[in-house]
Amino acid sequence: MTLPKLQIALDHNDLEGALADVFNVGDVVDIIEVGTILCLQEGSKAISCIRSMYPDKIIVADTKCADAGGTVAKNVSDAGADFMTVICCATIPTMQAAQKEVKELQVELYGDWTYEQAQQWRDIGIKQAIYHQSRDALLSGETWGEKDLTKVKKLIDMGFDVSVTGGLNVDTLKLFEGINVYNFIAGRGISAAENPKQAAQEFKDEIKRIWG
Amino acid sequence: MTLPKLQIALDHNDLEGALADVFNVGDVVDIIEVGTILCLQEGSKAISCIRSMYPDKIIVADTKCADAGGTVAKNVSDAGADFMTVICCATIPTMQAAQKEVKELQVELYGDWTYEQAQQWRDIGIKQAIYHQSRDALLSGETWGEKDLTKVKKLIDMGFDVSVTGGLNVDTLKLFEGINVYNFIAGRGISAAENPKQAAQEFKDEIKRIWG
Repeated sequence: MTLPKLQIALDHNDLEGALADVFNVGDVVDIIEVGTILCLQEGSKAISCIRSMYPDKIIVADTKCADAGGTVAKNVSDAGADFMTVICCATIPTMQAAQKEVKELQVELYGDWTYEQAQQWRDIGIKQAIYHQSRDALLSGETWGEKDLTKVKKLIDMGFDVSVTGGLNVDTLKLFEGINVYNFIAGRGISAAENPKQAAQEFKDEIKRIWG
Repeated sequence: MTLPKLQIALDHNDLEGALADVFNVGDVVDIIEVGTILCLQEGSKAISCIRSMYPDKIIVADTKCADAGGTVAKNVSDAGADFMTVICCATIPTMQAAQKEVKELQVELYGDWTYEQAQQWRDIGIKQAIYHQSRDALLSGETWGEKDLTKVKKLIDMGFDVSVTGGLNVDTLKLFEGINVYNFIAGRGISAAENPKQAAQEFKDEIKRIWG
């Protein structure tokens, strides 16, 4: 089993806050995500600033793109992003247009997607999917369960590199034991910790303990 | 029948281009949309700059929000937006969180939404929906047809104020004759015209001719 990666989600309202956090944990994590909120607040300079600090890290632009895939993908790629997210209800032409302009596309799974759609994404060559517990759903009391893990496993069986995200902390990682998760995405689980660098390292250590 | 409004979509890659275009047509149109591409490129200052130019126009932030609805809505509202778009596959809690922070929410219809979902949106008090021909779908040869018009009519019957968008020009407006469309959204149909101000006025005149 490959060691799952660790991704920090920078879901800040401003570049200052994001830079302060990424400066703490950027060296520890494998992937840096410029979150949707940050993209919408600061624009493409959020991506380009972080690229300039971390020339060799994988950077994700979490645009959750739903349309104009080619333009959005070209823009974030020009700014320095390696991966970009598209929303699962985007059309296949939108995904295909985006795919041409960025290294890898990640389909972000929200709401009522189907395995039939997922197979269409595989058929056009999309390799990554993000299984997402909505922050708002978590706030309203939903949590990770067997239903979620079954879906994650099925997506992996279909050939997806699956990232999981939503309310993750060091203690919830063991829920995924035995599942070949590609990447764990944490936001506040790291950045809201008293010592974010230590929190990121604890994630890494726990991943190594379980999957190493 | 109420006179449908006219909305200019500013889908520019940079603020300079958007300001040049909105400066030409802002006085003619009813609603100014800060498009997704522009939001992602320039961040919230795209909204605040246009708000400063047009203190009394309706401004839409086309975030196509899929998660973290409360934060995204508060941010665009703080920057000066009246309306904000959410993507149809966002969860109900996301939409509810967004609703609290912005004057009106617009659900943007992409992919396989259902009338059952649409009824849920109405049930939580959402009044606006955007029926959207995807730009990428249009590029791949799809166009407006009876199937689309039937859906638009059904949404209006459900009580939605329906905006329509995607490849609209002055000649396609008559396709909607007899339908109580709330708002027509045009982008390149106006901004790519030789004389954008004149193009916007022609849209307004044709709307008045058909619905006036």
